[in-house]
Amino acid sequence: MPRGVPNEVPADGLTTRQRRHTPVLAVHTGDGKGKSTAAFGMALRAWNQGFDIGVFQFVKSAKWKVGEEASFRALGELHESTGAGGAVEWHKMGEGWSWSRKQGTEEDHAAAALEGWREIARRLQAQTHTFYVLDEFTYPLGWGWVDVHEVVDVLRSRPGNQHVVITGRRAPTELVDAADLVTEMTKIRHPMDSGRKGQKGIEW
Amino acid sequence: MPRGVPNEVPADGLTTRQRRHTPVLAVHTGDGKGKSTAAFGMALRAWNQGFDIGVFQFVKSAKWKVGEEASFRALGELHESTGAGGAVEWHKMGEGWSWSRKQGTEEDHAAAALEGWREIARRLQAQTHTFYVLDEFTYPLGWGWVDVHEVVDVLRSRPGNQHVVITGRRAPTELVDAADLVTEMTKIRHPMDSGRKGQKGIEW
Repeated sequence: MPRGVPNEVPADGLTTRQRRHTPVLAVHTGDGKGKSTAAFGMALRAWNQGFDIGVFQFVKSAKWKVGEEASFRALGELHESTGAGGAVEWHKMGEGWSWSRKQGTEEDHAAAALEGWREIARRLQAQTHTFYVLDEFTYPLGWGWVDVHEVVDVLRSRPGNQHVVITGRRAPTELVDAADLVTEMTKIRHPMDSGRKGQKGIEW
Repeated sequence: MPRGVPNEVPADGLTTRQRRHTPVLAVHTGDGKGKSTAAFGMALRAWNQGFDIGVFQFVKSAKWKVGEEASFRALGELHESTGAGGAVEWHKMGEGWSWSRKQGTEEDHAAAALEGWREIARRLQAQTHTFYVLDEFTYPLGWGWVDVHEVVDVLRSRPGNQHVVITGRRAPTELVDAADLVTEMTKIRHPMDSGRKGQKGIEW
């Protein structure tokens, strides 16, 4: 990835410094692997810059992505004990949002997803974190559980310098149009095609 | 990513357990972002499983991807001090391979790339690591600095259970054909298109 020079300089009246500090909204979509893993890879950079990191996983099962979670919890603890990097908060819908008094029920994923989004909206308004991962968030958007217009409004008007990465298949067009950085991950070949099952250290 | 069930069960005479433990060769290619970041995201999982991680960056500049490197060095130190996760080694061509007595010269990237690959081949033979990231390795392959037939031969015959992830644009067909998991990252929109420069915590 070039650290260097943009393709053109826009006539937007901003200085390079102002433009450099424009917060980024990134979307990782497509049917291939790497959407979430790339988001967590970005979070590694952000952690090293001392950014406060908030991860919100809109997955049903609390068992997914335990490897990334454990690694980031280790980095968060390192931050608390030594001051290295940034703080890390990691929240999962699948086991009930930790800030919520309600325990997530299997039946009401829609309400849980909306509750998760509303908390994120509050945190964006309060500038709680600097780097947000909204993992698998395109699914509640696609299912209509969370209103994409509201999401785009909140993201467009978020104050300060807060970066947001959203992952998941079939990102809604309105979200893609609002994003600064959109990458589509396309599957060319996957081990499960040839009958392999997932394995530790690779799939989780 | 489903942890679950393969699309078909192959008639390869292997048990599920044997198939599960088949080492993975993954390639992240395409012109979009996320190739390296997804590889490092995978390495987070591997680290959490206690895998020994070796990263080999075939980049000219030692200044790239410092965020990921610093974060993984922190995880590696955590492993040494507490036993959490796995060991981490991180090598960069751009500042001269650390195992080499030769200091890398600006003039001889081809020789440096070949030297890096030969060291990786020795480590694969010795089963030094469990999870390898060969970052930006497609470039020396594409430029003919390292022979792709040799690379594919060594990868196909590597002993034990060693996972390898290779990143970079324009992955050679022979490498793609040898891989178990191939993802193409496609750029849909990038901030530099609209004249933004890279910024800390996002680009490095």
